[in-house]
Amino acid sequence: MKTKSVKAYGTDSAEADLKQFNIDRREVTSKDVEIDILFCGVCHSDLHFARNDWGMTQYPVVPGHEIVGRVINTGEGVSKYKKGDLVAVGCLVDSCRTCNNCKADLEQYCSGGWVGTYGGYDKHLDTNTHGGYSETIVVDEDFVLSVPENLDLAGIAPVLCAGITTWSPLRHWNVGKNSKVAVVGLGGLGHMAIKLAHALGAQVTLFSRSTNKIEDAKALGADQVIISTDETQMESVMNNFDVIIDTVPYAHDLNPYVGTLATNGTLVVVGYLGPLDPMLVTVPMIMGRKAIAGSLIGGIAETQELLDFCGKHQIISDVEVIKMQDINKAYERMLKSDVKYRFVIDMKSLKE
Amino acid sequence: MKTKSVKAYGTDSAEADLKQFNIDRREVTSKDVEIDILFCGVCHSDLHFARNDWGMTQYPVVPGHEIVGRVINTGEGVSKYKKGDLVAVGCLVDSCRTCNNCKADLEQYCSGGWVGTYGGYDKHLDTNTHGGYSETIVVDEDFVLSVPENLDLAGIAPVLCAGITTWSPLRHWNVGKNSKVAVVGLGGLGHMAIKLAHALGAQVTLFSRSTNKIEDAKALGADQVIISTDETQMESVMNNFDVIIDTVPYAHDLNPYVGTLATNGTLVVVGYLGPLDPMLVTVPMIMGRKAIAGSLIGGIAETQELLDFCGKHQIISDVEVIKMQDINKAYERMLKSDVKYRFVIDMKSLKE
Repeated sequence: MKTKSVKAYGTDSAEADLKQFNIDRREVTSKDVEIDILFCGVCHSDLHFARNDWGMTQYPVVPGHEIVGRVINTGEGVSKYKKGDLVAVGCLVDSCRTCNNCKADLEQYCSGGWVGTYGGYDKHLDTNTHGGYSETIVVDEDFVLSVPENLDLAGIAPVLCAGITTWSPLRHWNVGKNSKVAVVGLGGLGHMAIKLAHALGAQVTLFSRSTNKIEDAKALGADQVIISTDETQMESVMNNFDVIIDTVPYAHDLNPYVGTLATNGTLVVVGYLGPLDPMLVTVPMIMGRKAIAGSLIGGIAETQELLDFCGKHQIISDVEVIKMQDINKAYERMLKSDVKYRFVIDMKSLKE
Repeated sequence: MKTKSVKAYGTDSAEADLKQFNIDRREVTSKDVEIDILFCGVCHSDLHFARNDWGMTQYPVVPGHEIVGRVINTGEGVSKYKKGDLVAVGCLVDSCRTCNNCKADLEQYCSGGWVGTYGGYDKHLDTNTHGGYSETIVVDEDFVLSVPENLDLAGIAPVLCAGITTWSPLRHWNVGKNSKVAVVGLGGLGHMAIKLAHALGAQVTLFSRSTNKIEDAKALGADQVIISTDETQMESVMNNFDVIIDTVPYAHDLNPYVGTLATNGTLVVVGYLGPLDPMLVTVPMIMGRKAIAGSLIGGIAETQELLDFCGKHQIISDVEVIKMQDINKAYERMLKSDVKYRFVIDMKSLKE
């Protein structure tokens, strides 16, 4: 298969900083779209993957799955996109397309195993897929999304992961006008959850451990902030929320939040993979028919729905734009939660 | 308030056996129905409550909340029942009737606190409510249920608790034709879950740790039995079930069962109040949008729906009928799971 060599940023070991090297991109096949990458968001998963925190990284790795760019070339069988179109690629670049979940637009739960934008298996080149920290990417048109032209391009990038990860559970659990939604954690995911739940018409509460996030949360669209360490405040929202989106990326006690779910309410974990430590107690779950669930990014159709919704409601992520060369510093700051609320790489810096 | 003294069986301490004594029942007020108790099922909760296992028992206690009997008297304002009607009383004899849950026929989640058939607060007599291990009971007509005349009366009693506890989640999570349902645990609750899910048209699987339950489970309506300690069998049902009803009354590892839920599936804990030990791991929940929920008995309208369904489908519980005087032996056998599948007291033994 014919390939092109393009510049990228990545690493070939868990210990090394990211650095520039070249990778191969395939020439477009019949259904492929070639995209000039303009912006790429920086997700916590990028860092986890680069540093092999999940023990499954194959090197070299080129992270990045919040990709916004313009179409520069299309295969002869492509019908959805043409040169010059503003497009995006999120966390998935392929799936089996035949299982029940794929047929139901739930590619993120593909039982054959979906192909991640980076670190997945690239069947075309028999290697790992490489992500958006690069000049271009070539993706099957069915996994390319259309981006509204009216939005800030850096700000839209995090919608592809942080946005859809919170949008999908809000939609699945039927959040709408007058729903009572709470968000745990105010980072990349949490700030999008607040904006999106607010735009859907919900009453939005942020749970926070400190008072210094109150102003920011309200500016993002939260109606109130409940300080989770304040028993009186927690008591005031017992049996209250229809949906809680928990974006915290580490083990923490879910039991106080379960108490604040209304009857039939669901707490959705989107940020943490691992054992629920301390143990979840079933009493409030049984006494109020409450549920704890998980949710993973979103399907392609649902991601398109979100991009269209963002265009209509003028929603973008709050971002700090960086150069590709500053990625290692950005990772260090991200580990300290020192970003409001997402780093986005201006990819023209890689081309300089 | 005028009262009548009636014979009952109960205990005045956690350590003592149950014995016969007399209790007061109120004379019927305007909306009350007086019921001659014919049969009363024996629930695990009866034993837990008698022995103060939950640390909240006030003595004396008269257990029993699976009550079937005939109306012998009604208040002048009663419109639903008349003398001679075959009726039942389950776990609830009152609720606040004004909260959103009560208004939505979810009295079991009453935010004002529902009144248990025993061990609740009896506002009429300013004492504890006393349950069905007694000659008669007086209950507001709104908490009295109508029993189909075509069923075995001993067999219908456990429907009032074991039945509704499994029916409510089957209905809430939309089990119907071709749903894939699994049941964990084959006791009073589990055997009703199998019968009811089967009658709803579901494909029913029992998870069991031993092969000696296969024949019984199939006779009850299970399509298959999966031995939960057999990795190959467990692997064969990965990502398979829409709903799992977990009836096990002690802490156990839910993680292997979560793996067998299909995308969007829910495991409903109905039998165990306490911490989930070992810890639940979020990975399969997130990777398949799977949920863990709790569910508590059912509301009055839903319990009536179930009784009507049982009448139509000729469903009763498999029971072993005992005399009131044998209750202490029955408790000992129940602790060893030595009953298929529910003890029911023939209450005429108390009148002898």
